[in-house]
Amino acid sequence: MGEYFIGIDIGATNVKIGCFDSELKLISKTSITTGAEMGPDIVIDNITAAAGTLVTDAGFSIDNVCAVGLGMPGPAKYSEGIVISSTNMPKFKNVPIVRMLAEGLGKPVVMDNDGNVACWGEFVAGAGKEVEDMVFFTLGTGIGGAIVNHGELLTGCGDNATELGHIIIYPDGRRCNCGQRGCVEAYASANWTAQRATEAIEAGAESSLKKVLQENGRITCKDVYERLTEGDALAKKITDETAKALAVLCINVLHTTEPSRIVFAGGMIAAGDVLLDGIKHYFNEHIWTLKKETVEICFATLGEDAGIIGAAALAKHAKAPGEPD
Amino acid sequence: MGEYFIGIDIGATNVKIGCFDSELKLISKTSITTGAEMGPDIVIDNITAAAGTLVTDAGFSIDNVCAVGLGMPGPAKYSEGIVISSTNMPKFKNVPIVRMLAEGLGKPVVMDNDGNVACWGEFVAGAGKEVEDMVFFTLGTGIGGAIVNHGELLTGCGDNATELGHIIIYPDGRRCNCGQRGCVEAYASANWTAQRATEAIEAGAESSLKKVLQENGRITCKDVYERLTEGDALAKKITDETAKALAVLCINVLHTTEPSRIVFAGGMIAAGDVLLDGIKHYFNEHIWTLKKETVEICFATLGEDAGIIGAAALAKHAKAPGEPD
Repeated sequence: MGEYFIGIDIGATNVKIGCFDSELKLISKTSITTGAEMGPDIVIDNITAAAGTLVTDAGFSIDNVCAVGLGMPGPAKYSEGIVISSTNMPKFKNVPIVRMLAEGLGKPVVMDNDGNVACWGEFVAGAGKEVEDMVFFTLGTGIGGAIVNHGELLTGCGDNATELGHIIIYPDGRRCNCGQRGCVEAYASANWTAQRATEAIEAGAESSLKKVLQENGRITCKDVYERLTEGDALAKKITDETAKALAVLCINVLHTTEPSRIVFAGGMIAAGDVLLDGIKHYFNEHIWTLKKETVEICFATLGEDAGIIGAAALAKHAKAPGEPD
Repeated sequence: MGEYFIGIDIGATNVKIGCFDSELKLISKTSITTGAEMGPDIVIDNITAAAGTLVTDAGFSIDNVCAVGLGMPGPAKYSEGIVISSTNMPKFKNVPIVRMLAEGLGKPVVMDNDGNVACWGEFVAGAGKEVEDMVFFTLGTGIGGAIVNHGELLTGCGDNATELGHIIIYPDGRRCNCGQRGCVEAYASANWTAQRATEAIEAGAESSLKKVLQENGRITCKDVYERLTEGDALAKKITDETAKALAVLCINVLHTTEPSRIVFAGGMIAAGDVLLDGIKHYFNEHIWTLKKETVEICFATLGEDAGIIGAAALAKHAKAPGEPD
C-alpha cells in the first residue's frame, strides 16, 4: 500500500509533476516540455518516465505511490477520463488519457479540468483551506472559474459547469470570443482589460499608454496597471471598469452558491492590492442592503503549484471520498 | 414504523397540509388560515390539530406517519430549524418552529425555505423528475430560485444560496427593492413587468394599457400579457424585455451549475407559451456558440401542490439520504 500521491498538471507548453506525502506536503517537483505536437502516446510516455524519475530521485519507488491526480484543459469527458479536444494541443482528440496514464504508471488516475484542479489545490492547502464553500476565478487570457460547494467541486450535468467567465453582465455589451455579448470575460480578463485600453487610445483617448502602444505595438494588462500607479487617468478608468465587472461577478456567484470565500488567481493578480481593493470597493457599492454579507474576497496563495497540489489532493480525495484530505 | 409522510407549506395567509403514502402519492390535503397575528404557539397548535384531523379522516393515525416536511419563508436558520423573522409574519421572530412542530406532532420534522421545497416537489414529482440537475425559478412579486445539483438542493454556506432573482444583469440599471441595481427581478418579475409598463405609460407611451391604468388605478402583469395577445406594441416591448432578462438569467445559471433542465413556476407562468417561447427565443439569441447547449427550459407542472409534495419528499429524503425518493 502506497503512502504518496503524484499530482500532474498538463498545459499546452509544460507539464508540471509533483510528489506529495500522505499529508499532501510537497516532497519534490519537476517540469517537462509538453511536446504536444508529438502526439498523446509520446507525451504520456514522457510523463510516465518523468514521474518515475521524480519518485526515484526522492528516494522511493512508484510502488510507494497510492494514486495519481491529473489536471488537463478541456473540453473533456472528465468523468470518463477522455480528452475530447484541445485548442492548443490539436493531436489530442478523443484520447483516453486516464486509462493510458494509469497503464503507464500502474496506478489509479483521476482527472479534472485544470481550473477545477487549481481551485481544489487552493481549497485544501491555500486561500480556501479554512472554508467549506468557495468560488475560484483565474484571471488570465480569459476568466476561468470553479466552485467548491460543501467540500465538493461542482461539476454540473455534463462536466461543463462553472464557465464563470461567460456569465453575462451587460446583455447588449461587448462581443466575447465565445459568441455571447457582455460576458464578464470580455471586460475583465487580463487580455480584455488591455484590449479596452487599446481601443480607447485608438478612439483618441489621451494617456501615457499611447506611447506604449506606439513603441511595443500592443498594450498588456501589466502596462495598464503600471500606468495606474503613475496616475494615468485612462488606466484608472479601464481598471475601474475591470474591478466593477469582477465585483458584479462576485455578487452574482454569491447569490447563486453562497460561498464564504471568493478567491482570485491567475497572472493578473500580480497587479496586487489595487486590483483587490477595487473589487472590494465595487462589491460594497453594488451589493444588496437586505443583509450584511461576510464573504471574504482574496487572492490565491499557492501560485503555480496550485495545479499539482490540487491534482494530488484530488487523487487522495477520490481514494477516500467524504474523509478529510 | 410509519409509512406515511406529511408535507406542510406555511405561507403568510394560508397553511397547506398534505398527507402522502410511502411512494409520495397524495392521499388527502387541506388548507387552513395561517392566522400569523395570533403568534407562533397558536399557529403551530392549529397546524398540529389540522394535520391530526387530516390523517384521521384519511383512515389512519399520526402513529402511521414516518416524518414531516415543512416549507417556510425566510430568512431562517433552516439547518437549525429556526425562523429568524418574516416580513409578513411579524410575530415570528427567532421561533424554533421545527422543535415546536416536532413536539406537537410527536414526529421528526425537517424544514427548508418555501422556494427550495417547491423546487424539490417539481424535482421529485414534476417538471424535473427525469433529471438530476435542475434550476427552478418562481416568477411572482419577486423572482425566487432554487438549484438541485446532482440530486441535492444547493444550500450555500449559510442557508442563503440561490437568491437568483438578485443576479445582476444590468449593473447600472433599475434599483431593486433589495438595494442593488439591475437585478433580474427588477425587470422580469410579475410586479416589475407591470411596473415597467406603468412607467412607460406615465412617460407618455401610447398603449391600450393606458385605459387599464386609468380605470383600475394600476396595471397587472396579467393585463400586460392580455394586451400582448391583442397586438399592443407597448405590451410587446415590455414582455420582450422580460423574456430577454429571463433568458440571460438562464444563460448565467447554465454557465454556473450546468443544469439539464430549467423550470419556471409561479403565477406569471399563466401567461403561457408566449412567455416560454420568448425566453427560449432570447436564450438562443444570446447563448454562446462554443458548443451546442441542450438544456431544456420548461414550466412547472405541479401548480400549488408543489410545496406540500416537496415538503413531504424532503421528509422522506432526510430519512433516507442517498436513496431514491
